[in-house]
Amino acid sequence: MDLEDLFRSDCPGRQVMEHLTGKWGVLVLVALKDGPLRFHRLRDRIEGISEKMLSQNLRVLGRDGLLDRFVEPSTPPQVTYSLTPLGEQAVAHLCELFTWIARSAPQIIAAQERHDRGL
Amino acid sequence: MDLEDLFRSDCPGRQVMEHLTGKWGVLVLVALKDGPLRFHRLRDRIEGISEKMLSQNLRVLGRDGLLDRFVEPSTPPQVTYSLTPLGEQAVAHLCELFTWIARSAPQIIAAQERHDRGL
Repeated sequence: MDLEDLFRSDCPGRQVMEHLTGKWGVLVLVALKDGPLRFHRLRDRIEGISEKMLSQNLRVLGRDGLLDRFVEPSTPPQVTYSLTPLGEQAVAHLCELFTWIARSAPQIIAAQERHDRGL
Repeated sequence: MDLEDLFRSDCPGRQVMEHLTGKWGVLVLVALKDGPLRFHRLRDRIEGISEKMLSQNLRVLGRDGLLDRFVEPSTPPQVTYSLTPLGEQAVAHLCELFTWIARSAPQIIAAQERHDRGL
């Protein structure tokens, strides 16, 4: 598989791309870059995510082999999520992209303002 | 703005991240990496995109200052899209991420299969 395949609608990598770069998937992965977190800590860290969306994203990213799920034998049981080695590689690339976005945001916002003023 | 801000729901960079990494936005940007394309060439290159979704993504990415739009004075007028220098930077980062996804797809698909077999 190469970059070119992502343009094909039946490419399995295209589905992976959507999990990795979907609105919440990205934030879930990057939130775990400094170490494992429990469900409620993840929810609190990612402003605006619902528990339902968080659960769904954790399930999809776990199925992709990017996250591990560890159930602590406590009462009530606590579930902790962490990146797998594959997930760590994904996060390294995502962080490069997001660092660029964060650095370029002023230029992008200036472009939006010029556009909205009709310039 | 830094990486940490992306976790805040009011972060303007989070909106930019969604444009850049949304299902179609990514493919539109990467499709333009080898040079300008007309609307219909873009539509044909990105399998599964509707004209409506393509128009909407071109508008959003143009507003973000990532794409330029050039109207050729022909009959009927032809519209050509190209990356701005800012868009070229974005694509360089996206291509690194997608090259990794393409390379890792066999591992990810194997993880999905293990998961679906309940292993």
